[in-house]
Amino acid sequence: MRIEKDCVGEMEVPDDALYGIHALRAVGNFPITKERTNHLLIQSYIEIKKAAAQINANAGTLDRAKASAIVDACDKLLHDDDQSAFIVPAIQGGAGTSTNMNTNEVVANVAMRLHPEVKIHPNDDVNQSQSTNDTYPTAGKMAMLKLITPLCEQVQRLVKQFKKLSDEYQNTIKVGRTQLQDAVPTTYGKSFHAYATLFGRDLKRINSAINELKTVSMGGTAIGTGINASKYYQEHIVDAINVVSGLNLAPDTDLIDAIQNSDHFITFSGVLKTLALDLSKVSNDFRLLGSGPKAGLNELALPKRQAGSSIMPDKINPVIPEVVNQVAFEVAGFDTTVSMAAEAGQLELNAFEPIMFKSILTGEEHLTMAVKTFVDNCLNGLKVNVEQCAENVDNSAVTATVLSPKIGYEKTTKLIKKSLSENESVKKVAIEDHLLPIDEIDHLFSPAVLTNDEK
Amino acid sequence: MRIEKDCVGEMEVPDDALYGIHALRAVGNFPITKERTNHLLIQSYIEIKKAAAQINANAGTLDRAKASAIVDACDKLLHDDDQSAFIVPAIQGGAGTSTNMNTNEVVANVAMRLHPEVKIHPNDDVNQSQSTNDTYPTAGKMAMLKLITPLCEQVQRLVKQFKKLSDEYQNTIKVGRTQLQDAVPTTYGKSFHAYATLFGRDLKRINSAINELKTVSMGGTAIGTGINASKYYQEHIVDAINVVSGLNLAPDTDLIDAIQNSDHFITFSGVLKTLALDLSKVSNDFRLLGSGPKAGLNELALPKRQAGSSIMPDKINPVIPEVVNQVAFEVAGFDTTVSMAAEAGQLELNAFEPIMFKSILTGEEHLTMAVKTFVDNCLNGLKVNVEQCAENVDNSAVTATVLSPKIGYEKTTKLIKKSLSENESVKKVAIEDHLLPIDEIDHLFSPAVLTNDEK
Amino acid sequence: MRIEKDCVGEMEVPDDALYGIHALRAVGNFPITKERTNHLLIQSYIEIKKAAAQINANAGTLDRAKASAIVDACDKLLHDDDQSAFIVPAIQGGAGTSTNMNTNEVVANVAMRLHPEVKIHPNDDVNQSQSTNDTYPTAGKMAMLKLITPLCEQVQRLVKQFKKLSDEYQNTIKVGRTQLQDAVPTTYGKSFHAYATLFGRDLKRINSAINELKTVSMGGTAIGTGINASKYYQEHIVDAINVVSGLNLAPDTDLIDAIQNSDHFITFSGVLKTLALDLSKVSNDFRLLGSGPKAGLNELALPKRQAGSSIMPDKINPVIPEVVNQVAFEVAGFDTTVSMAAEAGQLELNAFEPIMFKSILTGEEHLTMAVKTFVDNCLNGLKVNVEQCAENVDNSAVTATVLSPKIGYEKTTKLIKKSLSENESVKKVAIEDHLLPIDEIDHLFSPAVLTNDEK
Amino acid sequence: MRIEKDCVGEMEVPDDALYGIHALRAVGNFPITKERTNHLLIQSYIEIKKAAAQINANAGTLDRAKASAIVDACDKLLHDDDQSAFIVPAIQGGAGTSTNMNTNEVVANVAMRLHPEVKIHPNDDVNQSQSTNDTYPTAGKMAMLKLITPLCEQVQRLVKQFKKLSDEYQNTIKVGRTQLQDAVPTTYGKSFHAYATLFGRDLKRINSAINELKTVSMGGTAIGTGINASKYYQEHIVDAINVVSGLNLAPDTDLIDAIQNSDHFITFSGVLKTLALDLSKVSNDFRLLGSGPKAGLNELALPKRQAGSSIMPDKINPVIPEVVNQVAFEVAGFDTTVSMAAEAGQLELNAFEPIMFKSILTGEEHLTMAVKTFVDNCLNGLKVNVEQCAENVDNSAVTATVLSPKIGYEKTTKLIKKSLSENESVKKVAIEDHLLPIDEIDHLFSPAVLTNDEK
Repeated sequence: MRIEKDCVGEMEVPDDALYGIHALRAVGNFPITKERTNHLLIQSYIEIKKAAAQINANAGTLDRAKASAIVDACDKLLHDDDQSAFIVPAIQGGAGTSTNMNTNEVVANVAMRLHPEVKIHPNDDVNQSQSTNDTYPTAGKMAMLKLITPLCEQVQRLVKQFKKLSDEYQNTIKVGRTQLQDAVPTTYGKSFHAYATLFGRDLKRINSAINELKTVSMGGTAIGTGINASKYYQEHIVDAINVVSGLNLAPDTDLIDAIQNSDHFITFSGVLKTLALDLSKVSNDFRLLGSGPKAGLNELALPKRQAGSSIMPDKINPVIPEVVNQVAFEVAGFDTTVSMAAEAGQLELNAFEPIMFKSILTGEEHLTMAVKTFVDNCLNGLKVNVEQCAENVDNSAVTATVLSPKIGYEKTTKLIKKSLSENESVKKVAIEDHLLPIDEIDHLFSPAVLTNDEK
Repeated sequence: MRIEKDCVGEMEVPDDALYGIHALRAVGNFPITKERTNHLLIQSYIEIKKAAAQINANAGTLDRAKASAIVDACDKLLHDDDQSAFIVPAIQGGAGTSTNMNTNEVVANVAMRLHPEVKIHPNDDVNQSQSTNDTYPTAGKMAMLKLITPLCEQVQRLVKQFKKLSDEYQNTIKVGRTQLQDAVPTTYGKSFHAYATLFGRDLKRINSAINELKTVSMGGTAIGTGINASKYYQEHIVDAINVVSGLNLAPDTDLIDAIQNSDHFITFSGVLKTLALDLSKVSNDFRLLGSGPKAGLNELALPKRQAGSSIMPDKINPVIPEVVNQVAFEVAGFDTTVSMAAEAGQLELNAFEPIMFKSILTGEEHLTMAVKTFVDNCLNGLKVNVEQCAENVDNSAVTATVLSPKIGYEKTTKLIKKSLSENESVKKVAIEDHLLPIDEIDHLFSPAVLTNDEK
Repeated sequence: MRIEKDCVGEMEVPDDALYGIHALRAVGNFPITKERTNHLLIQSYIEIKKAAAQINANAGTLDRAKASAIVDACDKLLHDDDQSAFIVPAIQGGAGTSTNMNTNEVVANVAMRLHPEVKIHPNDDVNQSQSTNDTYPTAGKMAMLKLITPLCEQVQRLVKQFKKLSDEYQNTIKVGRTQLQDAVPTTYGKSFHAYATLFGRDLKRINSAINELKTVSMGGTAIGTGINASKYYQEHIVDAINVVSGLNLAPDTDLIDAIQNSDHFITFSGVLKTLALDLSKVSNDFRLLGSGPKAGLNELALPKRQAGSSIMPDKINPVIPEVVNQVAFEVAGFDTTVSMAAEAGQLELNAFEPIMFKSILTGEEHLTMAVKTFVDNCLNGLKVNVEQCAENVDNSAVTATVLSPKIGYEKTTKLIKKSLSENESVKKVAIEDHLLPIDEIDHLFSPAVLTNDEK
Repeated sequence: MRIEKDCVGEMEVPDDALYGIHALRAVGNFPITKERTNHLLIQSYIEIKKAAAQINANAGTLDRAKASAIVDACDKLLHDDDQSAFIVPAIQGGAGTSTNMNTNEVVANVAMRLHPEVKIHPNDDVNQSQSTNDTYPTAGKMAMLKLITPLCEQVQRLVKQFKKLSDEYQNTIKVGRTQLQDAVPTTYGKSFHAYATLFGRDLKRINSAINELKTVSMGGTAIGTGINASKYYQEHIVDAINVVSGLNLAPDTDLIDAIQNSDHFITFSGVLKTLALDLSKVSNDFRLLGSGPKAGLNELALPKRQAGSSIMPDKINPVIPEVVNQVAFEVAGFDTTVSMAAEAGQLELNAFEPIMFKSILTGEEHLTMAVKTFVDNCLNGLKVNVEQCAENVDNSAVTATVLSPKIGYEKTTKLIKKSLSENESVKKVAIEDHLLPIDEIDHLFSPAVLTNDEK
C-alpha cells in the first residue's frame, strides 16, 4: 500500500493502482451502484487530456517532456481500451469531479510508468488549464455525440425496412381503424410508408440535436471565467480535441452560461423520448395487428422468435415489440430524471450532471439496441395476412362513406344501419335500393377509389 | 375608491369591495390564469376563521364582540356560498398567503358590515393565533378530504356495477388473451369480477389516504413554533374546526415537520394516480374488446352515446372510455407537478403548495366525474356479444392446454400445430389422433373444465 | 324545444340554440370540466370552415349560394368573437369530433339565419371535403402557432431585460458558487448575460418548433386517404386557410402519417418544458440570491410586490419567482400528460388529441403570463446589493485559485487552509508568506484578473 | 454443442450449459442490456420451484423421485448462490416467460446431473402446476419484499441519527426561513426532529406497502384460471413457499384480477418515490444550510469527504447529499417508467412486468445505499456552527413578531422597517421607542419565548 494525501487527509492506495486517492474516496462515498462511468465518457475524457497537454505545451505553460508523457499515456489508454483503473461509479456526487480526478490520476500514473524520468502532477499537469466544470460536460457531450452515430444507423435501417415493406404490400388493402372502430380502408403499403415517414422525422430530429450538443465549454475552466487558462489554450483547445476525437465540436461563446445551464440535455433527452414514444406507438400497433391467431385481428404475422408460454403449448408472443415498449417506458423515465436534475442546477453549476449523463447515454444505447432488434427480429421476416385483410374490408360497412358525397350523410347513415342489421354488404344493399346506378356503385366500391388512389 | 396600505405602500381599492389591498396585489402579481382558488379550499378557510374566532374568544385573547362579529360573517359567507370576493387566482406565489389574506379581508369587511359598531382588523383579529403556514395546508387538506366523499361514492358505484355485470355474465365463456395472443378461456363473469376487485382495492387506498390527510398543523402558526398562539387555542382549535366543518381532523404532533414537509401530498397524489391508471387500463380493455363492429374483436357492445364521425356515417366510437383515458393522463401529469413541487420545498416551508393543491383538487374532481360518466354512460347499458365470445373460444387452439398434464407439453404443441395448419379444431384433431379416450376429451373440453370451474 | 336526430336517436335542443344535437350530446357525455375548448382552437376551426367553403365552391362541389352563406357566417362569428354557442368541454372523448360537429352546427345555423333562403347541412355542406381526422389537428396546430407569437414576445422582453441588467452591473464583482460552495468570482454582468444567452436559446427553439407545427393534414379527410375530397380542394385548401388566418401553413406530404402520429406534439411540449425548467432554474437562483434580508445571501433585492405574511409583519417574499416555479412544475406535468396521450395513439388515429391540445395550449398561455410577470414585476426594478457582493468576494478564500498555476495545487491548498483557520484573507497570508512578489500578488488579486477579464 | 428444440425450431446449445434453448433465444432476442435479471428475483424463482415440486409430489401429480431431484437441484442452486446459468437479460419481452423458462431449464439440468437416473422435463415437471403468469409476479414481489428489509434498516438508522442530532442540538437557536426569507426562530433540535418525524412516516409507509406486496397469485397458472393445477396444490403452494423463503405471503383471492392488474406496483413505486423526494428535500436543505464557507449560510458543517475541485484547491463540496439527490431523481424516473408500464397492461396480463420489476428492485437497492451513505458519511460527523446560528438570530428583525399580539400587526411592521433602515436590532428599537416595558421586551426576546418553548 502507498499513502496518498488530499485536502481531507491521508489514505492507503494499493501499490499497483493506477488510480489514486481521489478515485478511491469516490468509491467509498458513492456505493450506490457497481455500474461505472460510461465507457465512452471516459474515452472522451482521455481524449480531452491528450489535447490539453498538446495545447498547453504549445502555449508554453506545460513542459514539453511532461506533455509528451501525458500524450503517450493517453494514447496507450485509448489504444488498449482498458478502463479497469476507472473505478468511479456512474452515480456520483461532486458534479463529475471524481471522474475527472480519476482520469487525471490514471493518466499521470501511466505517463510516469511509461516515462519514469518525468514527474507528472495530476492537477498541475494533467488537469492544467482545465476544471471539472468545463471538461465534464464536454466529455459528456462527446460521448452522447459518439452514440448518435450507431443510433442513427439503426433508425435509418428501420426507415429503409419500412419502405421495403411499403413497396411489398403496396396494393394490400386493409380496413382503416380510428378509435379502434372500423373506418375507411387504406393499404398496408400506405401504413408502412407512414411509419417510414414518422421515423424519418425522428432521424432528422436526432441529427438536429447534434447542434445542441456540439458546442462545448472547454476553456471556461472554473465556472466559465477561464481562470488559469491561457488565451492560446482557449483559442486552440477545441480544435485539438476535434483532431484527437474525430468529432466536430465548436466552442461556446458564453462560457458562464455554458457551464451552469443544462437545457441542451433536457432537449436531447426530449428527442430521445420522442423516438421512444414513437417506437412504442408502432409496437402497440404491431402487437394489436398481430393479435390472434384466432381471436384477434390476425393481420400481421410477426416472425416467431421463441416459445411464448411455459404452460400453454405452441403459444407465440410478440416479444420483440414488447421489449421495444419497455425500452420506451424506460427512456420516458430517464426523461423525468433528466428534467428534475436539470431543473435542480443552482447558480454557477449543475451538480447533477452525472445522473443526467448516465440517463441519456443509457437511453441512447438501449434505444439503439431496441431499434436493432426490432428491425432484425421483427420487421425482417414480417408477413401480412393478405386474405384476412381483404376479408375485413369486404365485411366493413364504413366503405359506404364513398357514397356520402352523392347521396348525403343521412341517407348513407340509413344505408349502413340497414346493412348491419340485415348482415348484408353495403354495396349489395345500395344496389338493391337503387341508391345510384350499378356501374357507379361498382366504380365507387373498387379498391382504388375506396383507398382514394383514383378519384 | 378607498385607499388601503400595506408594507409595500398604498393602493386604491373599489369602495364596495369586500376584499382588500392584499388580495388586489395578488391579482396583479399572478396573472397566470383566471381560474380562482378552489371553492372548497375557500369554504374550509372560512370554517377555520370561524373556529379560530370562537377559540380565541374562549382563550380570552379576542374580544367577545369581535369574535361574535367574525363568526356571524363566516356563517353568512358559508350560508350564501357567494365567493365572488375571493379574487386570488389558483396559481399564485407566496405560499398561500394571498388566499389567507383575502379571507381575512373579506371576513373582516363582512363582519363590520354586519356589525358596524365593531372594528375588526384582518390580521390582528381574523387571523389571530394563525399563520398562513398552518392554516393554508389545513384548508388544503380539508378540501381534499371533502372531495374524497363524492369520489368514493362514484368508485363504489363502479365496483357495484362491475359486480352486477359479473353476475349477469357469469357463464359467458370468452377467450383469455395474454400479450394479445389467444390464451386459455375464462368467463366474462370472472373478467368483470376482476375489475370489481381492482377498484375495490382503489377504494381501500383512497380511504386509507384519509389518514394521510386528516392530521393538520393548526396551532403551529409561523413555521410550526406556535408563536403568538395561546396554549388554550392550540389545544382546542382542531376540535372547533371539526365541529364547524363536520370533518374528523386530528392535530399533528410535530408541527415543525407538519409545516415544512409535503410527503402527504405526494402520497395522496400517488393514490389518485393509481386509480387513474387503473381506470385507463380498464378503458383500454373496453375499447379493445369493443373494437369492430366488423374488423375488430366485437365482444363488448358499448352503449351508443353519440355520432362518431363528421364524414363516416353511422360510425360509433367508444367516447366514454376515451375521455376516461384522458383524465387518467391528466392526473398522471398532475402527479409529476405535485412531485416536483413537493421536492422543491426548502427549509421551514414549502412555498409551492398552491400548485400542489390545485393539481390534487382538480384531480379529485375530474376523477370523480370520469368515474361517474363511465358508470352512467358506459357500464350502464353495456352488453356482451355472447355468441361472438363463444365462437372465439370454439376457434381457439389454446384450449388444448387442458390436455398438457395428460399428454405432455410437447405432444400438445404438436397437436396445436396440426390443428392450426389443418384449420381443424384441436378437439377434433385430438379425437381423430386418439390422444385420449373420447369421453375424457369431451369432459376436458367442457366449458366448466376449460375455465377451471370444475376440476 | 326543437327535435334533432342523429344515428343514436332523437334529442331536444333549445329552440334558439345555434349548436345542435351533436354538441349537446357531448356536454352530457363529458361532464369532466366546465372549461370549454380553447378559444383560439375554435377560432381556427371557423377559419378552416370558411376556407373550405370557398375552395369547395371553386371546385364546383358546393353550391355558390351555400358557400357564400357559410363564409358570411364564419365572418360574423370571427368578427363578433362570441363563442357562447361552442359548448363542448375541453376534455372530451371522440378525438375532437364533438368540437368539429359543434362548429359545423353553429356555422350552419348562423348561415341560415343570415340567409334564410339557403338550406345548409352541417355535414354535407359545412364539413364538405373534411373529416375531424384532418381538421381537428389542423385547428390545434393553428392555435398553438397563434400562441407562439405572444410567448416569443415575452421571452424576447426577458432576454432584453437580462441584457440591460447585464450592462447595468457589468463590473459588479460577485462570488461564484458551484455546488453552493464558494468558487472563483465573476460579475453580475456576466451572470445576467448568461441568463440572456440561455433564454435566447429557448427563443430559438420555440421558433424552430414552428416547423414542427406548420405542416397540416388538411385534405387527408378520413384517416388521410383524402376520400370525398376533390383534387382541386386538396391542392388549394391550405393556401386558402393561410389567406383567412394569416398563418403560413404547408400541406403534409404523407397524410396517413400526419393523421395518426403525434410526435410533433411531444416535441413541441418538450420545447415548452425546456423553457419552463430554465425559468424554474433561474427563479431558484433569484430566490436564493435574494434570500435574507439578514440570514441569507442578500445579493439581489427583488422589487417588493406584496406583504409576505399574515403573522410576520414586514416580511417580503419572492412571490414572482415562486409563481414562475409553479408554472414550470405545471408545464412539466403537462409534458407527462402529452407524452402518455401521444404514446397511446392506435393505428390510424390518436383519439387523445383533446387532452394534448388542452395541455399544450394552456402551457403556452401560462408560460407567456409567467414570463410577463417575471419581467414586469421582478426584473423590472431589480437591484443588486453591490456592497454585499464585494464584501463576499473579499471574504472568500477561493480567490487563491489564481495563484495555483504559479505555486501549484498543493501549496495553494495549504494557503487556503491557513487563511480559513486564521480567519485572514488569502491575499494577506500569501503576502506574509512571501509566496510571490507583492506586486504580482496585487495584480493577481485585482478584480479584472480574478474574473479573468484581463490575463 | 447439443441440439435443442422448441415450437419455433432447433438450436445449438453449448454442451455444458445448464440453461437451454429458451434462455438462449431470449439472449438473442433481447440484446438491450448486459444486465441480467435481478439476483433476488432469480433466488425467489428457485424457491418457488422447490416448493412447487414438494406440493406437486404431495398432490400425487409429480413422481416422488422427480420431485426429490428438483428439490435437491433447487437447494444446490440456493446454497451455491451461483447464478451464472441465468442468462436472460433484465430487460426482456415475453412477460417474464424467458426467466421462468431459464429457471425451469437450469433446475431440470442440475437435477439430472445430481440424479442422472431421473428424467426431468423443464415444463412438465419443474413448471408443473405453474405458469409464468402466476410465478413471475410472485417472484417479483418476493424479491421486492426481501429488499424492504435492508431498506427499512437504513431508514431506521436515519431516523435514529436525526433523533440523536436533535438531542445534541436541542437548544441551538436558529433562524427559521420560509420562502428563503428570514422568519421566526426555532432550534436545530426541532429541525432535526422534524426530519426524524418525516422519515418515521416513510418507514411506516414502506411497512404498510408490505401488505400491497404479500398477496400472490400462485395457483392461478394461466391467466388466473388455475388450469392444470390441482386443488391440493392451490391450497398448499403459498404455505410451502413461505417455508422455503421465510416470507409471509398470502394467496390472492381473485386470481384473474391478481394476474392482470399492476396497481400494487404503482403503489409501491409511489412509496419509494415519496421516500426519494423526501430525501431530496432534506439533501437540498443540507446543501443550502452548509453553503459557504464564507459566502453562504454556513450553519451546517458537513463532514469533509473528498477534495471538491480539480482546479480550486481546498474546495469541499456536499457530495453525499448530491448523490442522494441524484438517486432521488433516478427513482422519480423509475416511477414514470412503472406508471407507463402498468397502464399499458392489456386484458388478462401485463406483459411489461420485467421493466417494472427492474425499476422497482433497482430503486429499492439504490435508495438503501443512498440512505446508508447519507447516514454513514454525512449525518455521522455532522456539526452545527452554533455561533453562526446565534448571530443570525440576533441580526434578524423577524423576531419582532412576538410583539405583534401586544402592539398589533401594523405597529410591528413599522418597528421592523425602522430596525432595518437604521440597521439596529428590533429589540433595541423597541426599547428606545418604549413600545412595551423593558422587562416585558426582555422576556419576549428570550430564546425560550422566541422559539415558543415557553409561553
